[in-house]
Amino acid sequence: MLDQLTILAPGLIGGSVARAARARGAARRIVLWARRPETRIALREQPWCSSAGDTPEQAVEGADLVVIAAPVDRIAQLARQVAPRLKPGAVVCDVGSVKGEISRVCHEAVHGRAHFVGAHPMAGSEKKGWEHGTADLFEGRTCFVTPLSSSHADAVTQVVGFWRDLGAEVVTVDPDKHDEIVAHISHLPQLLASSLCAFLATRDPGWRNYAGGGLRDTTRIAGSDPRLWAAILEENRDEVLRALRQFQDDLEGFQAALANRDFIEVAARLERGQAYRDKFRPTS
Amino acid sequence: MLDQLTILAPGLIGGSVARAARARGAARRIVLWARRPETRIALREQPWCSSAGDTPEQAVEGADLVVIAAPVDRIAQLARQVAPRLKPGAVVCDVGSVKGEISRVCHEAVHGRAHFVGAHPMAGSEKKGWEHGTADLFEGRTCFVTPLSSSHADAVTQVVGFWRDLGAEVVTVDPDKHDEIVAHISHLPQLLASSLCAFLATRDPGWRNYAGGGLRDTTRIAGSDPRLWAAILEENRDEVLRALRQFQDDLEGFQAALANRDFIEVAARLERGQAYRDKFRPTS
Repeated sequence: MLDQLTILAPGLIGGSVARAARARGAARRIVLWARRPETRIALREQPWCSSAGDTPEQAVEGADLVVIAAPVDRIAQLARQVAPRLKPGAVVCDVGSVKGEISRVCHEAVHGRAHFVGAHPMAGSEKKGWEHGTADLFEGRTCFVTPLSSSHADAVTQVVGFWRDLGAEVVTVDPDKHDEIVAHISHLPQLLASSLCAFLATRDPGWRNYAGGGLRDTTRIAGSDPRLWAAILEENRDEVLRALRQFQDDLEGFQAALANRDFIEVAARLERGQAYRDKFRPTS
Repeated sequence: MLDQLTILAPGLIGGSVARAARARGAARRIVLWARRPETRIALREQPWCSSAGDTPEQAVEGADLVVIAAPVDRIAQLARQVAPRLKPGAVVCDVGSVKGEISRVCHEAVHGRAHFVGAHPMAGSEKKGWEHGTADLFEGRTCFVTPLSSSHADAVTQVVGFWRDLGAEVVTVDPDKHDEIVAHISHLPQLLASSLCAFLATRDPGWRNYAGGGLRDTTRIAGSDPRLWAAILEENRDEVLRALRQFQDDLEGFQAALANRDFIEVAARLERGQAYRDKFRPTS
């Protein structure tokens, strides 16, 4: 059990980390900091909040583990800001959806005083805000932990153990490999769902009322926060572009098969899709 | 209440029509026909099946309403086959996902003896087979009814009333307009979900185990029957190609914005997608 866990800038994920840590006894004290004063007041009333600091520097004081739960475009700056006030030997992680550059910058920012190990739980919702967090959000979900070759071994062990304590299945992977993986299984699907909705909006928007469950499911994540996602796509631009271009080539092949009335090829592509989809592990 | 409802070639939709008709008292007798003898034996044991004919011709005898529940590539042939044995004045509808050509061919096939009015309930599942049908599948779902200008007015009224009796919200629309609509809200999403899965299968398939709920939802319909969908895409080829090409242009624009680091444009596209998605009517 940690003596003190500090969570900076809690949104849906940070709010869930706090609840899960309390529910599973992962930390004696849970300290939070949020940018807006009214949020800090609301946080102080939560049963899982031991206290809420007025500044990030104040909140990290005495923390054994600091979780930076800010959007990807604010993580590095927060790490730099709190670095001088970290307890010597403290461990810092984040929950950002992109890891390469962030891991390197944050490692440098806290180096010499504390240890940074990136993390990315593959859990979320199209809802946002710490109010919507739940104690079981990470239960059975993958959490990537992305150490650098220069990361401190004990700090890595501690971050891995922390996410396991919250119920996640930890996958340890190189930060750049992580970015390639999520470009495919998370960022590309998001981009397609959003693009499909943006495209359908240019047609008769009333058509959406006729849709069955297929369109509803396919586009659910298009309801996610555009600001968060623009920052993720900016941060992971190169990998997303690579995945997107390859997907566009594939889609071009599908279009050509249909245009050429090559329905054997059309069926083969649908079959490959089905074979892949059928091997998803069952939801618990 | 119909005196006799006949359902030919029941799959998930046909099996649901039978259950819903029985549950809601829409027909006194429900007669079915399936191609495979073992299916006919199994159907005869269902509480919602009054009898199962050995041939389609036998099954339609005496029917007031015949629902052809076969895949789109078999509807016209079944209509032609049973036409001479239909009760004079009987009404025939289908449940196919494409309506233009099928409506015209079936209208011709039964013309002079009976009346064809196309229908397409926007309900389904990635499951297939009459065994998975449910009595509430159409509850609150859109059912397109697609009369031709030459359709018999009473027959249209009867088909509209039948689907309302099963719980559906009926939308009456021209068959070609229907095909344009479903190319956008059903066939394009299917094609994208299948293509995304087929593309991800070319990468490391193990990545799928890391995915959160986003990829799972976005690709659920890729689990649908490839044979059914190849037939639908073949039948609606022109409209699907038109929608797909326009979507590809849109996606090209997204890619260009990302490549040019135009993150204002990226965010604007995500926002348009979110605005469209947020106006989906809530699920009941």
